[in-house]
Amino acid sequence: MYLSKLVGARTKENPADAVIKSHALLMRTGFIKAVAGGIWSFGMAAQRIALKIEQIIREEMNRIDGQECSFPVVMPKELWDESGRYSSIGDELIRFTDRTGHSLVLGMTHEEAAVHFARDNITSYVQLPCMIYQIQTKFRDEARSRGGLIRVREFVMKDAYSFHLTQDDLEEYYEKVFDAYVRIFKRIGLDNVIAVKSDSGMMGGKISHEFMFLSDIGEDKLVICSHCDYKANMEVAEGIITPNDNSCDNQTMREVFTGSAKEISEVAEFLKITSVKTIKAVVYNIKSSTKQVVCFLRGDLEVNEAKLKKIIKCDVVPASLSDSLDIVAGNIGPLGLSESANRVIVYDNSLRGCSGMVIGANKPDYHISGVSVNRDLKISNFVDITKVNDGMRCSVCGKPLTVKNGIEVGNIFQLGTKYTTSMNMKVLNKNGVLVNPIMGCYGIGVGRALASVAEDKSDEKGLNWPISIAPWDVYLCPLRYDNEDVKDLTHQIYDEFVKAGIETILDDRSVSPGVKFTDSELMGIPIRVVLSPKLLATDSVEIKLRNHAQSEIIPRKDIIQTILNIKG
Amino acid sequence: MYLSKLVGARTKENPADAVIKSHALLMRTGFIKAVAGGIWSFGMAAQRIALKIEQIIREEMNRIDGQECSFPVVMPKELWDESGRYSSIGDELIRFTDRTGHSLVLGMTHEEAAVHFARDNITSYVQLPCMIYQIQTKFRDEARSRGGLIRVREFVMKDAYSFHLTQDDLEEYYEKVFDAYVRIFKRIGLDNVIAVKSDSGMMGGKISHEFMFLSDIGEDKLVICSHCDYKANMEVAEGIITPNDNSCDNQTMREVFTGSAKEISEVAEFLKITSVKTIKAVVYNIKSSTKQVVCFLRGDLEVNEAKLKKIIKCDVVPASLSDSLDIVAGNIGPLGLSESANRVIVYDNSLRGCSGMVIGANKPDYHISGVSVNRDLKISNFVDITKVNDGMRCSVCGKPLTVKNGIEVGNIFQLGTKYTTSMNMKVLNKNGVLVNPIMGCYGIGVGRALASVAEDKSDEKGLNWPISIAPWDVYLCPLRYDNEDVKDLTHQIYDEFVKAGIETILDDRSVSPGVKFTDSELMGIPIRVVLSPKLLATDSVEIKLRNHAQSEIIPRKDIIQTILNIKG
Repeated sequence: MYLSKLVGARTKENPADAVIKSHALLMRTGFIKAVAGGIWSFGMAAQRIALKIEQIIREEMNRIDGQECSFPVVMPKELWDESGRYSSIGDELIRFTDRTGHSLVLGMTHEEAAVHFARDNITSYVQLPCMIYQIQTKFRDEARSRGGLIRVREFVMKDAYSFHLTQDDLEEYYEKVFDAYVRIFKRIGLDNVIAVKSDSGMMGGKISHEFMFLSDIGEDKLVICSHCDYKANMEVAEGIITPNDNSCDNQTMREVFTGSAKEISEVAEFLKITSVKTIKAVVYNIKSSTKQVVCFLRGDLEVNEAKLKKIIKCDVVPASLSDSLDIVAGNIGPLGLSESANRVIVYDNSLRGCSGMVIGANKPDYHISGVSVNRDLKISNFVDITKVNDGMRCSVCGKPLTVKNGIEVGNIFQLGTKYTTSMNMKVLNKNGVLVNPIMGCYGIGVGRALASVAEDKSDEKGLNWPISIAPWDVYLCPLRYDNEDVKDLTHQIYDEFVKAGIETILDDRSVSPGVKFTDSELMGIPIRVVLSPKLLATDSVEIKLRNHAQSEIIPRKDIIQTILNIKG
Repeated sequence: MYLSKLVGARTKENPADAVIKSHALLMRTGFIKAVAGGIWSFGMAAQRIALKIEQIIREEMNRIDGQECSFPVVMPKELWDESGRYSSIGDELIRFTDRTGHSLVLGMTHEEAAVHFARDNITSYVQLPCMIYQIQTKFRDEARSRGGLIRVREFVMKDAYSFHLTQDDLEEYYEKVFDAYVRIFKRIGLDNVIAVKSDSGMMGGKISHEFMFLSDIGEDKLVICSHCDYKANMEVAEGIITPNDNSCDNQTMREVFTGSAKEISEVAEFLKITSVKTIKAVVYNIKSSTKQVVCFLRGDLEVNEAKLKKIIKCDVVPASLSDSLDIVAGNIGPLGLSESANRVIVYDNSLRGCSGMVIGANKPDYHISGVSVNRDLKISNFVDITKVNDGMRCSVCGKPLTVKNGIEVGNIFQLGTKYTTSMNMKVLNKNGVLVNPIMGCYGIGVGRALASVAEDKSDEKGLNWPISIAPWDVYLCPLRYDNEDVKDLTHQIYDEFVKAGIETILDDRSVSPGVKFTDSELMGIPIRVVLSPKLLATDSVEIKLRNHAQSEIIPRKDIIQTILNIKG
């Protein structure tokens, strides 16, 4: 490829709306261009990277006996009615009608299509286990697309679906996919990926893992124990709360004036105590209902909404002050507040055995101090609704936990029979009985993986691609391309590279060495080979790796073998 | 791949709705499955074929300096407003809104997206010419999807867009694409493809060619001269009409009773004349208008609607009897019928100089005979609206023309500046002046190419894939797989094949040789290798090509080299 012909303009300025590195650099190189919110065009360089990532994924899926298929982007409503997801999924699912008024959807995931294809094509246990997958465009109408390719609406995804006769067989295969994912992220050069236990959400099923690329720009929170193997998504993470020191708390209850102090931090400061000695109230509205949930937990902790939703089996949104019914916002306390047709009360584990606590008095300007949970509150049921924080300890080994940010680059789910039951897929087992196969499903977003590598590897000079997915191996950089001897040698070497399978972009522009070097670094091509009249005189070339500070002069005859060695 | 695990059930019966071979066979093999009208899932075998076709297309596009990109499936209305196609395209374009009410479309072709990507990324003539392309899913809401993968709504297409400074440069590149297309169809093994001149239709631009696979099941009609190089789509085909013999036609006009005879064939039979001696009237309604067009042409000829539309610059639909305003259907004639606010009259070239003709009398039950066009009709303007038929002669060399059926498997267009002008794409030319680049665009449908090969090569036994796109090279067919020695050898050979890059499907089922042979032929795998206890005893294997009637016994040690030779 000749750089002069590449459709992709490089710019010096960061795009105004790009707040993360990968977004800014992929745009500044002309690799990608936004067509609408969360909808992107990929130029040649980005597409070459995407195709290489896809090929690595394909090889690893085939290695675990995956059968590459292709399911449609557009599917009929009836198919999604079978699983129930046509109505259960919200606005993320694009719904529209065709010329005859028939209702269709855009695929955001393909469980329905996979079961539809498999249910006539798999009839006997002899065919199990098997896995079908595709690498294909999907559309999810995200409310907040952001960060370039990190969170988009249209994306290419590898989605795989496996079918099994028994849970044991699923679990065995699940491990194989797990290992394949580890190999995939390693091969595409994405370090700092960890697998964490996750919440299955809308997918159904129970056991699932997310593969998280650890990055400060990640929107997901992960809880990691640095001592044992414990890792979990914040939504499901558990931790041991440091218990209160209750030794000097044999106090009696009394009302204390707290004035305008509403937030726990304000109350604690007003009363000169730590928030650990307070009981916090957090109020949620239950979606599609007039009910509220009042959560009580220790003042230094936060509510984990995912845990709360699971416990009350309802979706919730934080209540606003204007929603409050008969509650004194900022002074809510467990004493005298009872459950009713419109109110559910939930007490967190962190309150167990606490004494000497400050609680809201359920009237303006007052709290109550000296409260003993056991003596005064008569709570019959404690549950875990606490969000794990950096101060907590691992529930497995007791060592300190760390909270980190991550970007989800892959996920694997044990689906169970949710789809095979609802969509009536049955196979004959060894005893001749028709049973619903057990499914697993497994996804990797190609564009997000690409952006994550860009995010991880880039530096102040620009992008920096691992050679396994780089758009080109070599940036061939003749200085004084106007010099006929240099030009001849350039084309000779270019042809030799092509022949040797070394993918090369040739900077054939008549610009200064500085511009050429800057662009080669901005585009992140792993190997730069420089030719010049001076080097020509000694039959040498200069080679510099994007990852190394120093370049090296080597004999011209050694260049191909040197590069092949680097490619490995 | 082990056949026992393949998700794809083979059936003996043709699907009830499959009227063409490729449709029936691709379904009977479990290669594809319908998800909705014109929307298909591809199983592993079909997807492997599709990927090989895509790779051949990719290699040939890259060979002519194509830059593979990826444009979105979903695009915003605004982009299509820029070109004017949001409103000019009818129901084939799927339109819908996202969660915020923003209007979007599903891409059915990507001129807008290509220009959108190119216009900021190409700024100077130095970057021209260049070509960007993608291989990607599209959706076109066809009113009548049919024939399995032949005419679908969702499809994967290679669409390419080139940009040029001059028309000469476009034409030079257009030739290169033409040649690349010839190579592509040759490499995928699709014979009987010819390039014909075509009507550019909604794409804009002037010169265009369609690559047509000649097949009786094709819906397109092509006009071919077997003597010179003339080939054209029926829509634009021209031919020389055999002129009437007017020697004995010095007759006078007179009204003749024709009773209920309305169709030309009925009138000719009633009057004992040939249809050549009649003038036919064909009436069309102009779309979105109250106007009608009355076409007069020689009775043995048909109207070419595409030509008519170009001449009157309006879209038309055949009028029905109930539409007729002040016209006597079945007795319409040019005498006494005049143009009006609601009526346009068009006279075909075929009427020039005719005499002794029968025309409608514009009153029930009567025609007029003995009409001389020159003497009686005073027509000032003849045009060509005739559909070419087998009886006509080539307008280039005068030799007989043939009409054949074809399936469009590719097309190439010289677009001109339609999109670069409407979308305001400009580049600096050598003189520093901003000009709109000239575009070409070039498409190939992957699924239709696949189905066309299936249609072309299959026989009464089943599918029959050329080795260049076959899902597997070899069908490894152990007879008595239950025999341990056979089984061991099978796995040994399977491993050797995989190592040698020979793609193999292993029939590991415990079924009769007959079932295995039938399936290997039904699936159309090019090479069948048979192993059995008897062959094992002589250290031999049997090899049979799908295209050959006879099998051959060869030494086991020669099998890999033999197959590699066949693969070429």
